Amino acid sequence: MISAGDPQLSVVLSGYGGYECLKVMPWPTRLLGKGDVQVAVVVCGMNFADLYTRQGLLHERKPPFVLGMECAGKVTAVGDSVTHINVGDRVLCYQYTGDLYREHVVVSASNCFVLPSGMSYEHGAALAANYLTAYFCVLDIGHLRDGQSILIPSCAGGVGWAATQLARSVGTVTIFGTCSPGKRDAVQKNGVTHPLNHDNYDQELLKHSPDGVDVVIDSVAGSAFSTSQRLLKPLGRAVLIGSSSVVTGSKKIGMWNFLRMWWDTKGISATDLIMHNRVVAGLHLGLLMEREPDRIREAMDHLFQLYEEGKIKPYIDSTWPLDKVVDATKVLAERKNVGKVLLTIERTDSSEL
Amino acid sequence: MISAGDPQLSVVLSGYGGYECLKVMPWPTRLLGKGDVQVAVVVCGMNFADLYTRQGLLHERKPPFVLGMECAGKVTAVGDSVTHINVGDRVLCYQYTGDLYREHVVVSASNCFVLPSGMSYEHGAALAANYLTAYFCVLDIGHLRDGQSILIPSCAGGVGWAATQLARSVGTVTIFGTCSPGKRDAVQKNGVTHPLNHDNYDQELLKHSPDGVDVVIDSVAGSAFSTSQRLLKPLGRAVLIGSSSVVTGSKKIGMWNFLRMWWDTKGISATDLIMHNRVVAGLHLGLLMEREPDRIREAMDHLFQLYEEGKIKPYIDSTWPLDKVVDATKVLAERKNVGKVLLTIERTDSSEL
Repeated sequence: MISAGDPQLSVVLSGYGGYECLKVMPWPTRLLGKGDVQVAVVVCGMNFADLYTRQGLLHERKPPFVLGMECAGKVTAVGDSVTHINVGDRVLCYQYTGDLYREHVVVSASNCFVLPSGMSYEHGAALAANYLTAYFCVLDIGHLRDGQSILIPSCAGGVGWAATQLARSVGTVTIFGTCSPGKRDAVQKNGVTHPLNHDNYDQELLKHSPDGVDVVIDSVAGSAFSTSQRLLKPLGRAVLIGSSSVVTGSKKIGMWNFLRMWWDTKGISATDLIMHNRVVAGLHLGLLMEREPDRIREAMDHLFQLYEEGKIKPYIDSTWPLDKVVDATKVLAERKNVGKVLLTIERTDSSEL
Repeated sequence: MISAGDPQLSVVLSGYGGYECLKVMPWPTRLLGKGDVQVAVVVCGMNFADLYTRQGLLHERKPPFVLGMECAGKVTAVGDSVTHINVGDRVLCYQYTGDLYREHVVVSASNCFVLPSGMSYEHGAALAANYLTAYFCVLDIGHLRDGQSILIPSCAGGVGWAATQLARSVGTVTIFGTCSPGKRDAVQKNGVTHPLNHDNYDQELLKHSPDGVDVVIDSVAGSAFSTSQRLLKPLGRAVLIGSSSVVTGSKKIGMWNFLRMWWDTKGISATDLIMHNRVVAGLHLGLLMEREPDRIREAMDHLFQLYEEGKIKPYIDSTWPLDKVVDATKVLAERKNVGKVLLTIERTDSSEL
């Protein structure tokens, strides 16, 4: 066990900006509080949101700080008041405010979930952000049912991959997904019925399904939300995924383009909702976890069950050692990945795993 | 059987305006088309939307025309291509464009639903508009589940009454409902957990349930939609009921106040949806019926089943002969009713029933 506050090899964001701001270096951990858990990290899951964080778009928090929203590993210490997690448990951690790309993490027990026995650390580190997001989009808010249809943007990405599997888990559904042409085979194998090009997906979709679809997933970084709404059948649900407090006032270079995308999504009219019998929703997984931890835990239990039934399985694009974080980040930034990009911690002493 | 086009005693709207525009007089029916059904009407169900129609707020259609969105009676003739409805069937009819307050109606078979054997004409005439609306708000879009909570405005009114019963049908739910103090006993007997005053319901609700509720029903004639949204828990659903094409451009006296209410509901922000994990939706039953008749029929089957299981039962406030339509209308306009206001057709020859 490490001592409280010991510096741990970490991916530190030294300032907002380009790849040069990603430093792999020792960084102090916080002290273990009575509600906390300390985890020897084996694998970290990378997310697209990491890119925004690096560019200064997501946080009010000032660098330097440690990046990383999810990881998996083995528990090496627990605080006095922690009851549902024990030393030696294999867990995944999800914390949307970051701080998880490091050898050992200290997190609140409420951010920790004990892995089912059959789940690898790699799959554990790939589960939380993508599958929880997809879960709320597809099964909870989206309430996708047998016989219905869904549009999943970037269906080769982390959330899209998860959403495709969750959509299939409800029965016979028609799945439209956007991806670049080179990824079509992969997404079809994962369950997408109709892979569509990014640039004219709306027209293509309406050719196949002139009345539209039952569920559309969208994101603030995606195309105009008004397009998503137009693709809905009556009673259809459009879910807008956000991951940002970008509108709360930070002023950074590059912000303008981001904001333009954002405002572009704001075309929600009460009149249209009524006249077209539409449902629109927003999802912010991190804030949801803060306010409704029980709903998250319920969803995670459901996901673990689906995993054990073989209905979902994270797809790992590539695995990189921690000190190759820049290369790993480029895969995401250039959208070269299919599935999840992981960072692994290399240990000289693996006795605690 | 009446002959095609025979004048039938009807409630005719002679022009837009006050009660003096409601005339009970003979009026020609349309001819029976091959997809139509002719029904000897026994009971008509009145709706709040009738008031708006009279004031010229809902339709582009120019008076004179016959009012009435729902009725129940016995089928006296069917067109050549009608297969699922037969002469002698007891049916309810729902047609949001009106034309049903009359002795005999001719409607498309798709607007007709055969009553379960145990259902009276009175209950049939009280079912479609209120229970279908409530069904989509509470069970479909609202997706209310056991253990959750709901706010139902005007819970002593037609839709509110139905929504209360449908909410209870899913299990143990906490039901907040607004009503005037004199109606509290009645709505509590119907299943409302916490009756609230119209004027400070939001503060009262938050006293009982500081985190808000899972589902809020709202209507364009109700208070600001932004209040409804603020009362939602994360992942909560607010459903805005509309019944109007009021925004498409008619210019009438009295329109301004109506529009002001309307615009007041327009505070839907994508940012807020995301930051609060909110779901908002619009419902227009009439347009839904036009575009998705199968969904309506599915919902109606479900309602008939709930009726037969004793889980829902329309509550009749009062029954008036057709020629007392003005008195009946005043009950609605002055919000004196608890439950449904009906009009009955008095027949000298009841042989066809």
